[in-house]
This record gives sequence, C-alpha cells and structure tokens, in this order.
Amino acid sequence: MLRMSTLFLRTLREDPADAEVPSHRLLVRAGYVRRVAPGIYSWLPLGVRVLDRVAQVVREEMDAMGAQEVSFPALIPREPYEVTGRWTEYGDGLFRLKDRKGGDYLLGPTHEELFTLLVKGEYSSYKDLPVWLYQVQTKYRDEARPRAGVLRGREFLMKDSYSFDVDDEGLERSYQAHRAAYVRIFDRLGLDVRIVQATSGAMGGSASEEFLAVAETGEDTFVSTPDGYAANVEKVQLRGPAEGDPAAHPPAEVLDTPDTPTIATLVAHFRGLGMDVGPEHTLKNVVLTLTQPDGSTSTLVVGVPGDREVDLKRLEAQVAPATVAPAEVEQVPGLVKGYIGPQEGFPAGLRYVVDELVVRGSAWITGANAPGRHARYVVCGRDFEPAGTVGAVEVREGDLCTGGEGPISLERGIEMGHVFQLGRKYADAFGLDVLGREGKPVRVTMGSYGIGISRAVAAIAEQSHDDKGLVWPRGVAPADVHVLAVGKGDEQKVVALRLSEELEARGLRVLLDDRGGSPGVAFKDYELLGIPTGLVCGKSLADGLVELRDRRSGSSRTLAVEEAVDAVVAEVRG
Amino acid sequence: MLRMSTLFLRTLREDPADAEVPSHRLLVRAGYVRRVAPGIYSWLPLGVRVLDRVAQVVREEMDAMGAQEVSFPALIPREPYEVTGRWTEYGDGLFRLKDRKGGDYLLGPTHEELFTLLVKGEYSSYKDLPVWLYQVQTKYRDEARPRAGVLRGREFLMKDSYSFDVDDEGLERSYQAHRAAYVRIFDRLGLDVRIVQATSGAMGGSASEEFLAVAETGEDTFVSTPDGYAANVEKVQLRGPAEGDPAAHPPAEVLDTPDTPTIATLVAHFRGLGMDVGPEHTLKNVVLTLTQPDGSTSTLVVGVPGDREVDLKRLEAQVAPATVAPAEVEQVPGLVKGYIGPQEGFPAGLRYVVDELVVRGSAWITGANAPGRHARYVVCGRDFEPAGTVGAVEVREGDLCTGGEGPISLERGIEMGHVFQLGRKYADAFGLDVLGREGKPVRVTMGSYGIGISRAVAAIAEQSHDDKGLVWPRGVAPADVHVLAVGKGDEQKVVALRLSEELEARGLRVLLDDRGGSPGVAFKDYELLGIPTGLVCGKSLADGLVELRDRRSGSSRTLAVEEAVDAVVAEVRG
Repeated sequence: MLRMSTLFLRTLREDPADAEVPSHRLLVRAGYVRRVAPGIYSWLPLGVRVLDRVAQVVREEMDAMGAQEVSFPALIPREPYEVTGRWTEYGDGLFRLKDRKGGDYLLGPTHEELFTLLVKGEYSSYKDLPVWLYQVQTKYRDEARPRAGVLRGREFLMKDSYSFDVDDEGLERSYQAHRAAYVRIFDRLGLDVRIVQATSGAMGGSASEEFLAVAETGEDTFVSTPDGYAANVEKVQLRGPAEGDPAAHPPAEVLDTPDTPTIATLVAHFRGLGMDVGPEHTLKNVVLTLTQPDGSTSTLVVGVPGDREVDLKRLEAQVAPATVAPAEVEQVPGLVKGYIGPQEGFPAGLRYVVDELVVRGSAWITGANAPGRHARYVVCGRDFEPAGTVGAVEVREGDLCTGGEGPISLERGIEMGHVFQLGRKYADAFGLDVLGREGKPVRVTMGSYGIGISRAVAAIAEQSHDDKGLVWPRGVAPADVHVLAVGKGDEQKVVALRLSEELEARGLRVLLDDRGGSPGVAFKDYELLGIPTGLVCGKSLADGLVELRDRRSGSSRTLAVEEAVDAVVAEVRG
Repeated sequence: MLRMSTLFLRTLREDPADAEVPSHRLLVRAGYVRRVAPGIYSWLPLGVRVLDRVAQVVREEMDAMGAQEVSFPALIPREPYEVTGRWTEYGDGLFRLKDRKGGDYLLGPTHEELFTLLVKGEYSSYKDLPVWLYQVQTKYRDEARPRAGVLRGREFLMKDSYSFDVDDEGLERSYQAHRAAYVRIFDRLGLDVRIVQATSGAMGGSASEEFLAVAETGEDTFVSTPDGYAANVEKVQLRGPAEGDPAAHPPAEVLDTPDTPTIATLVAHFRGLGMDVGPEHTLKNVVLTLTQPDGSTSTLVVGVPGDREVDLKRLEAQVAPATVAPAEVEQVPGLVKGYIGPQEGFPAGLRYVVDELVVRGSAWITGANAPGRHARYVVCGRDFEPAGTVGAVEVREGDLCTGGEGPISLERGIEMGHVFQLGRKYADAFGLDVLGREGKPVRVTMGSYGIGISRAVAAIAEQSHDDKGLVWPRGVAPADVHVLAVGKGDEQKVVALRLSEELEARGLRVLLDDRGGSPGVAFKDYELLGIPTGLVCGKSLADGLVELRDRRSGSSRTLAVEEAVDAVVAEVRG
C-alpha cells in the first residue's frame, strides 16, 4: 500500500517554467518525474510504477508472441558500428566517449549491430530460424532539441527487438507478428495510435511502418486519405497534375522583370501589368547544402511551385544520412540570387531536381539567370531536364497523394513504435549466414522493431488528461484506487485504512491519502495524480456512507461503507 | 514454458579462453552471458531470468523495509559531481563524455549527488524524514582491471539506496534497517556472506561495513579473529608489540656494512659476523609517490619491519582519494638508495611515517643515509619521530589486531554489498537542510547502501557449482524444474510435454528439453545449466516410470508417472 503520509511525493500547484506540453506539465506537477539535465529525467515513485507497468505490458506481449528477452550493454565498443558505418552516419546524435585506455565507445542508440553479431556467434543453421530477440533497455541519443520532458529525451527506456529469418517470406511473417503484437500492446496501454507508412531513417532497410499516438503536440505529421491510407509526411508521395506534352506550350521567352528577386515581388510585377499570374505559376528554385556524415558537402537546387515552402525534414528523410540546410546562394558560382532558373544559363554540373508537383510538360515562370530578368513558358522536359524528383514541399490539407484516393488530411502524432524490414543490410555487413535447406550458406534477413517505453508514459498522459490533472488508463495507472480520508476526525482515517487493507486483500493496488490535511488539498491531489477510481471517506461517514468517484467522467455515487469494497473491485475489474 | 528446441541457447563444451574463475567459465559455457568488450557483457535468456530473480528479491526486501523505488539517469551532467569533488577524485575510474554542445557529462558510478539534490528539491521539514530511496540501475566504472566476467564489470547492475535523517540516532536506525534487510536478501539469494568492517573509499563518510561472499577467487581479503571480529584487510589495524622506553636502549651506532643495499644482503652481512640478526630486526624504508586526483604528486617514506612487504592497496585505502606507487628513489634528493634511515641524515621536509608494527621505543637496524653504512639501536621516539602511523604491511595469518582478540585468520571474498554512514558530507556540499523540531534549519545526515546485482549472479555461481556445471539455489534459478525427454520414441516427448504443462498449471516455471537428440547431450546440458530439480522421461517410461533428480546432491529416485507432478511440486516448494 502506498500511503501519502510517507510517499516520496510533493505535488506542485504551479506549472514548471520549461514545460511546453500538457504531459510534461502534469507529470512534473504530479511528482512523476524531475528534470536532471536537458532531455534527462529522474523517475519518482509514482513514475517508476507507471513506467514498470508499461514495460510489463510490452514484455508480456513480446513473450506471448514467442520473442525471447535478452539484455545488451548500453556502453558499446566502436568497432561494430564502424563496420556498418553508423559510427559516422549517426553524426552528432551519437554519444561517443573514450575509456581509460583511449578505446572508442558509444552509448547505444539501437542495437542492430550487436544482435547481428550475437546471432552469428550462436546460430549456424536454417533450423535455428526464425528467432526473435528483444530487450528492454536504456538508450541514448544526443537529440539536437530534446523537448517536452520524457516525450523526447536523450536518455530513454526502449524495447527493441530483432527478427532473423532465412528468406523474405519469413521476414514478412516476423514483421507481421511484431505488427500484430504492437497493435495489442498499444491497445492495452490505452493509446490511440495510427499505423502509418514510414521511411526508415538511419536504420537502413525497406518496408517500415510507424505507430503514431495521435496528439496535437506530436512532432510527427502524418497524412491520411478517406480510403484509409496513412503515411508519415516524410514518406508520402504527392500526386502532381497529369503530365503534358512539353511541345504543346509556346516557346520560352525572357522578360525584363526589374527588382523582382522574390515570388511576391515577381507576382506583383506581373499583376501590375494586368496579367493573371499567381505564385502557383512560378517555379521557385531553392538552393540547399547537403552535408554527409563525414562532413563533406555538396549543393543541390530544388524546383518547387512558387506558392509552396520546402519541408527540410521531409526532404532530409529522402537524402539520409545526409543533412540539409539552406545554402548561401552568393557562394555558389553561376547562380544569380533571386533570378535562378533551371533552363539555359543554369550552371553546368550543378545538381537540379524538382518536387513531385513539377511534372513533365508543365510550364513555369522562373528566373532567367540574369539580374532583373525572368522567363515564361519554361517547360519541364523541354527547356530543362531535372536530374531527379524528390518530395520537397510542405504537404498541405487537400493535396493528393499516390498512396491513397481523395484529398489528404493532416494530423500530428507522437512516434510510439516503429517496425522495419531491415533486410540484409546488417547481415551483409557482418557476414551473417546460416546453412540453408540445400546445404549451402544462406544470408539471413532481419527486421528491427522498437517501442518507446518512457515516451509511452508521456504519450498516454498527453492523450489522457483534463484541466485538473492526469487520467490514467487502468492498464498503466500507478494504483487501482485512490482512497481519501478527509475531515478532522479519526474515524475517517480508521475506516479509510480498513477499506484500503480489505481492497489490498482482494488484490488491488491502493494509494491511501492518510495525511489528514485540508480536504481541498486531498481532492486537488486526487485529480492531479490521476488514479482512475477514487474512494472518499469523508463527513458522510457519520451516516455510514462513502463516495465512489470516477476520475475520467468526474461522476460519483454514494455507497454504504459495507458495499464499498465490492463496488471498487467491480469498478476496477470492469 | 521454456523449450530447449526454440530457446536462444548454445551451450559450449569448451571453456572460454579468457575465463579465470569457475563462475565466468560456467556462465559462458551454459549460455547465460556473452562478452562484448572487456568488462561489458550481454545477458542471454537464461541469464536475464537469473538477473531478474536477483533484482526481484532485492526489490521485495527494500520495499518491505519501507524504502521507495525511484530511477535516476545514468548519464549525468558534471556540475553536481564538481561540487563534491568526485568529478576529479574518481580519476580514471569515471567514464566522462561531452554532448553535442560540448557540455561535460559522466556515466554514474554511484548517485549520492543526485539523491541529495532530489531530496533538497522536494523536502523541507524534519517531519518528512527519515526517507529511504533506492533504485535498481545500470552503473558504470572504468575499472583498470575488469575481470572474471560479470564479477567485476565496467557496466553492471546495482541496487543503490540512500537514507536521509535529521540526526545521528536516525542515521544509525536507517543504517541498521538496511543492514538487516541485506542479511535477509543474501539469505534469500543463497549466498554465504560475511559482514566485515570496511573503509569507505571514494564515498566519504565514517561507519561502514561490507558484505563479502566467501570465495577463494574473491578480490577482497578479510581478516577474522576467534571472537567474531571481521574486517576488510584495508580496514584492520594491526596490534604491534607493546611500547617501550626509548631511553632503555644503547645509543645508536653507525656501522660499516659495505654492499648491503637489500634486507637479504644486510642480514647476511651480520650473520657473517656471527650476529643473530633476522630481517625482523631491520627497518625497511619504502619510498612511495602519492598522486592526488588532480595529478599533483608528493613523496612519502614508510618504515616497516624488514620481514614485511608493503600492501599498496591497503595503504591506498588510507590515503584515498590519492593513489600510491613505488617511487624512483634516485629522483628523491637526499636519499641514498639501499641505505635510507629515518634518523640523523634523513632529508628534512620529507614526510616519514611508520607502520603500526613500528612502535615507540622499538630499536632497529636501518640505513645510515650514507653508502655502505647502516646504524643499529635506532630507536623510534628517540632517534626519529615519525610524522604518523599507517597500516602499510601485508597482513599475515596469525597477526594480532586491535579489533578482536586472538590470532588473525585470512579469507577471501567478493564484495556483494556495502553499507555506509555517509554523515553530512553530501548534505554539506549541497546545503541540504530541513526545518528542525525547534524551528531552526538542521543539516541532514545520510547513509548510502549498495548491492551488486549482476555481480551477485556471478558470486552465487562461484559459491554454487560443481565440476559438471552450475547448481542454482532455488530462489534464483532460471526455472524450477528441468524436464528431459530422452530416447528415440515420441512417447517420451508427449509425456514430458504433458507433465511440463501440468507443472506449469501448478505454478512452476519449467524448462523442457524437447530437442530429442542424444541422451548424453541432454544430461550434460542438464548438469551444466544447473536447474535444481530434473525430471527425466526416458526408457523406463515403458514401465510407467520417470526419474526425479536432485542437481545439487546428484541423487535420484524412480517414480510412477502419475506421482511425478506432486513429487516435483513437493520438491520445489520444499
């Protein structure tokens, strides 16, 4: 039994100064977590309980699907990550350190390398496969912008698992088994998640889906279409207008457009001449610098419709592990700032690509590569040939995409889980073969599957709270029932303790407020802490009555004391 | 149910090349752990189970005593450790790293600083105390000599707890409560431990005891006397001969002793002159360099009886956080190598101390600070005055000590737990005060208590194995019963599976060997893995019989199949 009189807990009436989102605010105010450094938190007793419950649900479902728990170190020598290139590719996101002998180590962000090596060390035959291994472990990523408390930490608890199969069909089965387990896990955690198609980031590999907890404060944007398609905004491919015949347009024509270095001034120029030109008729050529993990850089120019902005995060997902930043146009020889066009006059050897919305046969107003001059009827596929197509623009509500039918809706979510078909990237790196059915070595194919456990605590809080405090789903609440002794007399305390003991004897986990302070404080803490069921022993005890409260609905009913235990058990057991 | 046919496990017939001690050899051979780097290990499924069982026992006893579980980060900013000086004092033993912004961080070796800050942040009144907080957490120490597998790792799992009290009596109660809980914990883990008085090392503080698991392969030596006194060899104070009257000896006399730079040559010289001189009559002056954590060094000369060696580890415990190493005598001005004496001619300003065995009034043969010359009747307290007394010599069987009566016995052990009365060192560093009973601020006093959880797995294996394999105590075994289906027919497998299911239905944890390979392999693995009870479904099944084996005693009995489940349950439940 947890007793508030001795529980290591101080609730706060004020929001912490650095809290941007409700879950962060409430987890700190309700005494679940405390900040130690940016993105680094301590868990207090109630927080430890919720964290353990989430981990327990994950373990049960992983065990039930037949995965086996192992435990790897977080402190890892450099060599395996050097073999796969991730020592470098992870860039600043990796915590690196040296030991007393000068050896290079890292704090593990994910463990593909070590799992691959482990299986290589132990297994040697197709008969050993498939095997699914998982761990629940503290992981480290030096996030550029840790935020929102434990929602995006630099030290965090994660379940990561890995599947090993002899062939693609096996990988698909392993992937689907994990996907199904994840559906069960998030259901048990009371999280409203959407499964969206995703890119695979620094993990490598092909097929991949994310489980996003729907939340306005989420960092990830995902699209969905009315027919049920859903994808991470980094993954979605927009559908541009139909391609046309490049020869169907008038020839390109260069115009004097003095003082029009921006889309806005350019459109104003044409409108001043009485022409019906909007930003969507212009082609904006955005100059970017790509930086590879080894520090080498190159320039990339991307053509997008003039009414669109470039989404660097979305673009970055397509050029990973390189990073992308706006370039200093003045530093790029041959480019005329404000008057860039991909056609004649564009510097030879400079890489030019277009967004998916810029299709073959489309005609544009764009820069003429000379100060104060633009061109019109500049046609893609006639006047310029892009070196490739990328998804570069910020996706908008109502856009069309290739994955689903109908206009796109945009929502935000928190990445809670990720399932990947890694394929043979890591098996190739380490030469992970097993003897196949035909007696020849077969290269193993792998999947990688993660769930953010500490993040889940925040995501649940984000989805499940009100203006008074937290409202835990039963499956993860730090206690089943919050018993309150309110009032001046001893009787309330005596009865509250007796009922708490009886509830514990029935197998319930009880938080007892036995502090005997002001009823106002007790009720405020009850609302803040978010235990799903409250049992109030107050003034009406004189009439043999207690009050049963439901934290989520706020509803309450009065009961005879002798009915209370059965009623609470029924409530909790559902 | 764990089935060997799918369990991620490969047992090894050969000892690993790097294994020095039985626990390391067996935990690797039986597939419980695998090495990743020096002192850094992965835990495989059976290992995870034992580790969890140990952690669970520790948690249960900590909860039962009223301690509350919290969880701190392992990645910690430098500042709090700078305040206490441990950032520097820990020397090379601390893993240090920088984040992407250049901020200094460390991987926590113990968490006194953060716990102190947490309590300071939350609590403010004597009414809040005592409070006992603990965590079960991965810790990091960059050991100079990681060894023996998980016995002395660089990444390891530890339970650390901290007590906070308003006064010394409270601290004593908190200390005794932890001590009692530790006795229960080690009893439940099946570990044979001795509680010995200890020094407190880099933790600071005063009263401190260690729980040592008795093992020949242990790194710690402890002494005990017939009356029950026990102490770490670093802590024990030897009892020298009685002090005498310094004036009772003849005056000091310098002698020509050519070519006698060592104790052996010196003794031979005197014996050659027909004198009854032994090494114990000589005073050996050992020149040492003390290095402080900040890198500054100083010279220390220690006088010990000539028949004794200096125990650097024991000496180091008394000068911590400084470290000690033999000095280059030639580099110290004024010292004549091989002919050093603490009396006349000893360099002024050089620090000279004596071992506990060199008492006031004792007379010695020692160097005369001139090449080829020694002096006799050099009397402590007359011809020289030591600046202090230290425990410097290697302790021997039969020595006398100040803590207990009778001759010392020496044994070796593995440090499993440590209880400290820290006192106010950390509260002083961070200004941790609470409002006292009289309305004035009171400085809090603390205790610090640790148990090595991953180390316990190795220590248990070290104490509990035979030449065939591991022999787990019931409380920590990865399964309660190991069911073996041996033989060619299907019947053994069918019956073994049925019995396993029935045993599971009775609440037992079952490991089923359903591989159907050679009986020899199955029996060898049964012995190696060390599950306490075996149930063999073999040839005699044709007669309706199974065999119940006790792994520890090696005894077995034959049973009717229908009696097997009850018999196993009775065996396991004791």
